Amino acid sequence: MMNESARNTPPYADPAQLERYAELIVAHGVNVQPGQLLQIASETIHKDLVLAIARKAYERGAKLVVTDLADPRHARLRIERTARDEDLDFLPRFVAARYDELVDEEAATLSLIGSEDPDLMEGVDAKRNNRVRMSRFKSLRRFYDEGINQLKVQWCVAAAATPAWGKKVYPGLAPDAACAALWRDILSMARADRPDCLALWDVHNAKLNARAAKLTSMGLDELRFTGPGTDLVVGLSPQYKFRGGGDKSTRGALFEPNIPTEEVFTTPDYRRTRGHVRATRPFLCNGTMVEGLELGFEGGVIKRLVASKGQEVFSEYTKSDAGASRLGEVALVGIDSPVYRSGKVFQEILFDENAACHIAVGRAYAYCLVGGEAMTDEEKAAVGCNDSSAHLDMMISSEAVDVTGRLRSGGEVPLLKGGSWVGDLA
Amino acid sequence: MMNESARNTPPYADPAQLERYAELIVAHGVNVQPGQLLQIASETIHKDLVLAIARKAYERGAKLVVTDLADPRHARLRIERTARDEDLDFLPRFVAARYDELVDEEAATLSLIGSEDPDLMEGVDAKRNNRVRMSRFKSLRRFYDEGINQLKVQWCVAAAATPAWGKKVYPGLAPDAACAALWRDILSMARADRPDCLALWDVHNAKLNARAAKLTSMGLDELRFTGPGTDLVVGLSPQYKFRGGGDKSTRGALFEPNIPTEEVFTTPDYRRTRGHVRATRPFLCNGTMVEGLELGFEGGVIKRLVASKGQEVFSEYTKSDAGASRLGEVALVGIDSPVYRSGKVFQEILFDENAACHIAVGRAYAYCLVGGEAMTDEEKAAVGCNDSSAHLDMMISSEAVDVTGRLRSGGEVPLLKGGSWVGDLA
Repeated sequence: MMNESARNTPPYADPAQLERYAELIVAHGVNVQPGQLLQIASETIHKDLVLAIARKAYERGAKLVVTDLADPRHARLRIERTARDEDLDFLPRFVAARYDELVDEEAATLSLIGSEDPDLMEGVDAKRNNRVRMSRFKSLRRFYDEGINQLKVQWCVAAAATPAWGKKVYPGLAPDAACAALWRDILSMARADRPDCLALWDVHNAKLNARAAKLTSMGLDELRFTGPGTDLVVGLSPQYKFRGGGDKSTRGALFEPNIPTEEVFTTPDYRRTRGHVRATRPFLCNGTMVEGLELGFEGGVIKRLVASKGQEVFSEYTKSDAGASRLGEVALVGIDSPVYRSGKVFQEILFDENAACHIAVGRAYAYCLVGGEAMTDEEKAAVGCNDSSAHLDMMISSEAVDVTGRLRSGGEVPLLKGGSWVGDLA
Repeated sequence: MMNESARNTPPYADPAQLERYAELIVAHGVNVQPGQLLQIASETIHKDLVLAIARKAYERGAKLVVTDLADPRHARLRIERTARDEDLDFLPRFVAARYDELVDEEAATLSLIGSEDPDLMEGVDAKRNNRVRMSRFKSLRRFYDEGINQLKVQWCVAAAATPAWGKKVYPGLAPDAACAALWRDILSMARADRPDCLALWDVHNAKLNARAAKLTSMGLDELRFTGPGTDLVVGLSPQYKFRGGGDKSTRGALFEPNIPTEEVFTTPDYRRTRGHVRATRPFLCNGTMVEGLELGFEGGVIKRLVASKGQEVFSEYTKSDAGASRLGEVALVGIDSPVYRSGKVFQEILFDENAACHIAVGRAYAYCLVGGEAMTDEEKAAVGCNDSSAHLDMMISSEAVDVTGRLRSGGEVPLLKGGSWVGDLA
């Protein structure tokens, strides 16, 4: 017997909205093309939604839908129980082969986030945990370089609720009710609660594209973030290019890397970062929550680091390689964001990074520099385009934070005041 | 929070017996060695048992446990919804890369059978279904040739109950009770209901090894099966070698390809098969149940084929290639088998083939011929060792069937009478 819709999920979410969400993901998120290979990676708990998405992909002519259904408990089991430390570096070649093939095929790939157990990695050995992450990154290097940075794949990260994640956001509700409430948030922030969802996304995309274009055309030299605990200057390259909204893959298909997305973002010249910054929301690092983080930058590198929770995990993470303690991304989000307006902390970066301005340590997106797609590693290094096995976003704005642009031509221009976009950036 | 045992399964099975079963699978089935890679393939429904098995594998020093958790509904979805027929031939290279790597690594690989929906493939287009199967086989050719036939991997197929499968075996019970009853059968047939389970397996293995050795040393030229609807002669090669019980991998580890196992089996000279045969139990072909099958062989090839159910699916299967309508295996099982004695038809080949003598059309096991591991394809063909993308077992004995051996030296010797082993074969 076939499952014609997201059968097991409807206790938690409106079936019509879920169908629309699946359609949004397939048509707009990965935008599967006729004859194209689609990969869907997800925890097993989302298998009904995965099936509904696969069905829609075949309706659009997908060549094949391959799944990567994971039980996340194996990740912790491995870190805790592997007898020999060096075995933590082992990643089968077929994993790299899989991601290389996504590049060769110019495939589409979807990741559904939302964990059956968001606390799974709490307390796990930070060094061992990070060692596993690094070995995976090294194996997937080509996918990141060509698939993501050269736009050879259409990729999308979207979310699905779980009872345990729901409890994180709605601690006062029972797990099922919390899951249902979180689904309402997810569907609403994805605009899937509206019949004209796809048209709304087109309008939204156009707005983000336009905002990014304006910021690119302004001739910015630096961004300065000021607020409680924060006075941070992020230097930009002369080649900086803001992006926002959908991207276009090498096969010419528009896709949406994140659902939802509210940010415009660019690649800084990491060497010019200076000052101090306070994170305004908690965020996960290698599966562990980091709270109350404060960073001090000197000469583009983190020189001071304190956190009220998760400090060791974050510290270990920034030691992954030289680039892990330098900036790779700066993103601007206004408090008009529906994620911000929801008033919630989702404890999932896909949402929280779309609630506030954020910076990321680690690997930069070369395509946020003019000509970046074709740059060699040497050329990237020469313009301060950061390289690393790491990439971790952290939120740094709120209604108490202003963002000011310093122009290459001299002078300053306010970009966000009290968290809100200023002037024609709104 | 970690799952320290097969947490979600205990409503259906005794936890201590399940733990013992996991231990049997790891220690005796795949016999994971320190530093070895283990793959576990299973439907998602068995994820708790998979985790329990992985934990035991790490305790034995496994380098890494990789899982392949499948939602079987995608198989039907693909066959039904793929827009272009030719896309059904596509199998990503990374799938072959995965199985090639198991060979290169001299890894261990476990398949847990037992479906969340045993009827899933009923009524699906037979040609499209078989097309997908063939493309997969072609991609996994090296794994079958080197991994299985040259014993480079330790492989094991074991079972886990599901409510829907339980209902097939116990139609009068509610799904949960049926699942619990089936688990009792599985654990009992695996001897995991006995504290001395591993020692019992050693004794059982020795018995099967000895029976196989006796049959090998007898100098058999042909096996003749006689009973209602059956008078079948299966010719053997002069190099025939019966096998039964565990095998030894190239890295020197004993392993158990099937849990349970009650058979001794060998590779026939397919060219010498003649007569007619009636299947004594239903069996699955490409996911569809075949019932009431009768076959007529001439010159080693199926020339007549009728079935009361699943005839089209089986017929399509035997047309996969030339070898799919020729014999690749003959196996002897007595009614002392606990699977037979259970009095049940399990509708899963892992069990039903261990309840009765069986033949298989399709690919032969070269290692059932003296020197077979090193034979070229031409050498195999010269001795009637069948090659095919197919391999499908079907049961052909009962208490009403006798098996007689015809000796190369002339004369006949009874092997099974009324389903029971004769003389010192018992």
